[in-house]
Amino acid sequence: MSEIVIGVDPGSRFTGYGIVRLDGSEPVYLGSGCIRTGNGSLASKLKIIYDGITTLVEQFKPVSMAIEETFLSKNVQSTVKLSEARASAIVAGANLGLAVFEYTPMQIKQAVVGYGWAEKTQVQYMVKNILHLKGEPQSDAADGLACALCHCFTHQSTVAMGKEVANTSSIHGRLQNKIK
Amino acid sequence: MSEIVIGVDPGSRFTGYGIVRLDGSEPVYLGSGCIRTGNGSLASKLKIIYDGITTLVEQFKPVSMAIEETFLSKNVQSTVKLSEARASAIVAGANLGLAVFEYTPMQIKQAVVGYGWAEKTQVQYMVKNILHLKGEPQSDAADGLACALCHCFTHQSTVAMGKEVANTSSIHGRLQNKIK
Repeated sequence: MSEIVIGVDPGSRFTGYGIVRLDGSEPVYLGSGCIRTGNGSLASKLKIIYDGITTLVEQFKPVSMAIEETFLSKNVQSTVKLSEARASAIVAGANLGLAVFEYTPMQIKQAVVGYGWAEKTQVQYMVKNILHLKGEPQSDAADGLACALCHCFTHQSTVAMGKEVANTSSIHGRLQNKIK
Repeated sequence: MSEIVIGVDPGSRFTGYGIVRLDGSEPVYLGSGCIRTGNGSLASKLKIIYDGITTLVEQFKPVSMAIEETFLSKNVQSTVKLSEARASAIVAGANLGLAVFEYTPMQIKQAVVGYGWAEKTQVQYMVKNILHLKGEPQSDAADGLACALCHCFTHQSTVAMGKEVANTSSIHGRLQNKIK
C-alpha cells in the first residue's frame, strides 16, 4: 500500500501542513511548512488558505486529507476564526477530490506521542524521530505532520478512530434557484 | 450606476441567497432561493455551498457579495457550523473575484425594516414590498435578499456601515513550502 496524505493544522494566521507517503506501514516525509495568511481581510485570508492547499495538492497529489478538529476555545471569536480557516482548507481538499478525515487534538497526540495530553515540544520531537528528520520541524509544520501521521497509524487499523467527513465521489449539489 | 449584488444568509443546512441589481438607487429582483446541503459529511456540505454559490455567480455575474456575520449562539457547536458554512460561501465568492462585505443581522434588519430587532416575518414582508414581488419569499431566500438590499442601501451612502472583508485584486498567497 502506498498512499500520500496531507495533514492540516488550520489557523486563521498560520495553517501548518505536512505531507507523508505511507509505504506499507512506513511513513515517509515528503514536505511540510506553514501557510501564512497575512494581515488582509477575512476573505483574503480564506483565499490564501484555499490557494495554498490547492497548490500543495497539485504538487504532491495526496489522496487523503487529515485535519484537526476545531478546538472549542473559551474565546468564541477564536473558535469562529479557527472554524473559518478549517472550512476553507476542507473545501479546497473536497474540490480536488480528496477524502477528508477529522481527528481531535487528543487523538493526534495519542497516535504520535502515545499520550493525549502531550506538550507541543513532545509532538515536534516524536515527529522528527518517526520521520527520521535531521531537525525538529517548526511548530505549525510539526502539527500538520502529526495530523498526517495520526491518519497513517490509525486509518490502517480502523476507520472508526478517525471520523471520515467526506467521500467526494458521492457529492451532488442541491441547488434551488427560483427566478421571478 | 448598475451593480449586481448576491446576498447570502449562510447555514450548515440551508444557505439562503438573493440576487439584486441596483439600477441607480432602485433595487431590482433577479433571483432568490436556498442551497440545501443534505445529510452528507461536513466536507460534502461545504462543497455543496461552494458549488451553489459558484453556479449562481456564473449565472448572474454579481460584482459584490453581501453576507451575514456569524451570529454568536450560546451553542458553540451551532456557531462552529455556521462559521464553516459562511467561510465556504466567502471563499467561493473570493475565488470568483467578488468583493465581499459583511453585515450584522441588526444592520440588515435596520436597513430593510427600519428596526434592528425586527421579526423574520417583518423582513419577509418588507423584502416583498421593496422588490415588488407577487408573494413573500421563503424565509431563507428573504434573508438572502435582505442582505443584498442592506448592501444596496448602505454601501451607496457609506462603505463604513458595511465592513469590507475582501478586495480580491489585492490577494497574494504567501505559501512556505519546505522540502527536506
